[in-house]
Amino acid sequence: MTAALHALLDPPTGRVRVGIGDDAAVWSPSPGALQVITVDECTEGIDFRRGAVTLQDAGWRALAASISDVAAMGGRPVLAVVSLTLPEDLDQAGVLQLYQGMDELAGRQRVQIVGGDLSRGRVLSLGVTVVGEVRPSNLKRRGDGREGDVVAVSGPLGLSRAGLAILEGEVDPAKLEPRLVERALAAYRRPLPQTGAGRFLGGSRYVRAMMDLSDGLASDLPRLAQASGTGATIDVERLPIDPACRAVAEAMGVPPEDLALQGGDDLELLCTVRRRAFEYLAGRAKARLGRALLPVGSLERGEGVALLRGGERRPLELRGWEALR
Amino acid sequence: MTAALHALLDPPTGRVRVGIGDDAAVWSPSPGALQVITVDECTEGIDFRRGAVTLQDAGWRALAASISDVAAMGGRPVLAVVSLTLPEDLDQAGVLQLYQGMDELAGRQRVQIVGGDLSRGRVLSLGVTVVGEVRPSNLKRRGDGREGDVVAVSGPLGLSRAGLAILEGEVDPAKLEPRLVERALAAYRRPLPQTGAGRFLGGSRYVRAMMDLSDGLASDLPRLAQASGTGATIDVERLPIDPACRAVAEAMGVPPEDLALQGGDDLELLCTVRRRAFEYLAGRAKARLGRALLPVGSLERGEGVALLRGGERRPLELRGWEALR
Repeated sequence: MTAALHALLDPPTGRVRVGIGDDAAVWSPSPGALQVITVDECTEGIDFRRGAVTLQDAGWRALAASISDVAAMGGRPVLAVVSLTLPEDLDQAGVLQLYQGMDELAGRQRVQIVGGDLSRGRVLSLGVTVVGEVRPSNLKRRGDGREGDVVAVSGPLGLSRAGLAILEGEVDPAKLEPRLVERALAAYRRPLPQTGAGRFLGGSRYVRAMMDLSDGLASDLPRLAQASGTGATIDVERLPIDPACRAVAEAMGVPPEDLALQGGDDLELLCTVRRRAFEYLAGRAKARLGRALLPVGSLERGEGVALLRGGERRPLELRGWEALR
Repeated sequence: MTAALHALLDPPTGRVRVGIGDDAAVWSPSPGALQVITVDECTEGIDFRRGAVTLQDAGWRALAASISDVAAMGGRPVLAVVSLTLPEDLDQAGVLQLYQGMDELAGRQRVQIVGGDLSRGRVLSLGVTVVGEVRPSNLKRRGDGREGDVVAVSGPLGLSRAGLAILEGEVDPAKLEPRLVERALAAYRRPLPQTGAGRFLGGSRYVRAMMDLSDGLASDLPRLAQASGTGATIDVERLPIDPACRAVAEAMGVPPEDLALQGGDDLELLCTVRRRAFEYLAGRAKARLGRALLPVGSLERGEGVALLRGGERRPLELRGWEALR
């Protein structure tokens, strides 16, 4: 789809530096300044289910997804506009609950919600546009990785997917420790965009490519590798898995790596780092952000993404929904 | 709804100059510069009907509505991002048709489409965000009108509504002159945002308040008057009515003024002008834009909007959909 749109639309010119195909578009509103702009569409029944999340959660999650795209370019989010499609059963109180959830996250991330539009429809849908700023030297794209780079993520994976499994009844929460259940549910309902990590990684010259993990490592790393003109491997045994994700996976009877690989919505960042600088950068990340930078694989010569497990190597199979992305 | 959102969200601070409640939000990305940002949500079955318009038209119309909001602030549109909700029966070819329509208008208006997001849903919905620029001295808001101002519009009204009447079978096109049918249909399917008029009017110090007429004069003038803290009158006999709109109204058996008052989607601009400068400004508009600036009423002391017809004065009745706007 992206390729077809590239063919249809004029290539970015003049002040537009990055068009369709990255986490966000980038343009220069004035000499020396860069702005980042992105939109995410969240539709009930696809991206969330009422009943599983409150309207406040739905608002939070939609805004979080767009803020995360700005973070993934190395940027700082500044403001947001919101377009809502409202089904008949949502009244003004419901709209205010959606905005309340957005406003809570906006306050934490110092984002201002400055405008919106409403339309009627059959299902609830939220389109959130976020505008941010990025220093030209901090801009990170997904296509700038190189062979040999360490592939790393900004935090544990699969936690949000574990929360979804609980909400969708794939696992019985009564069999799990309550604090792990809480932790997984919170990750799903109120994911935190990694704006601080994005700015830190954006500011490092050792970080080459970056994107956010909104669709899960198994979907997003192939995009990064393809955009960079490389292949990649994922070292399955090094995947960072939260204890709550591990507990849910065990209760589901699936390998925890599956949740970590396929789970989207964690909003962690994926980046590639010059190999020789990795240890140094990971140490600085720990000191600055209080979070490690976690290596999960490498960029390699060739095409496609392979999984390494116990010395064995097999190609990653892609599922889903890529055709339209 | 707007008032409730104002109460919920923090008031615009720092670099944000105009928040929710005008055609577009305004902020300052760097000292001395102002940026305009707006979003419009267009949903199938509400804002358009497939069958009545092609997918290309639907794309064009959605982008046009957002560009018009930027024009209404006195701004120049620069770029757009698009969020789509796609029903099952729309494949990649359909998405490309939507983008094709947007791209045609974008090319004419020198707007670049730089990003987008897709989600699945039960009905087609397009959310289009446009970012534009405006010189600080050219920014026009809807709340800056004053008692005594001439209320004027940038072109004839009701033409798009006449096109809709033909498409919806409210009138038999076989009874109308084909060139009038074509004209009305084109106005509905491919409305042209008045970007040139917006920049011209934005640049005049005689223009006090401005907004676009996306919901029709009968809905939009009350908003402008209320935001300005005034009442208003509409001189029904001076409403500019296109011959095609007149012919459709006659065939429908309704007064053409009704179409002109209620018809949205014309994307003409509504402005208020210092009374003593009106003739001068209208003359310059004619010379610069090749279009007259058409007086349709006045701002007055008090509240509410009244219709003047044959010396009689009666209050305008509001219909519809205001509660949620």
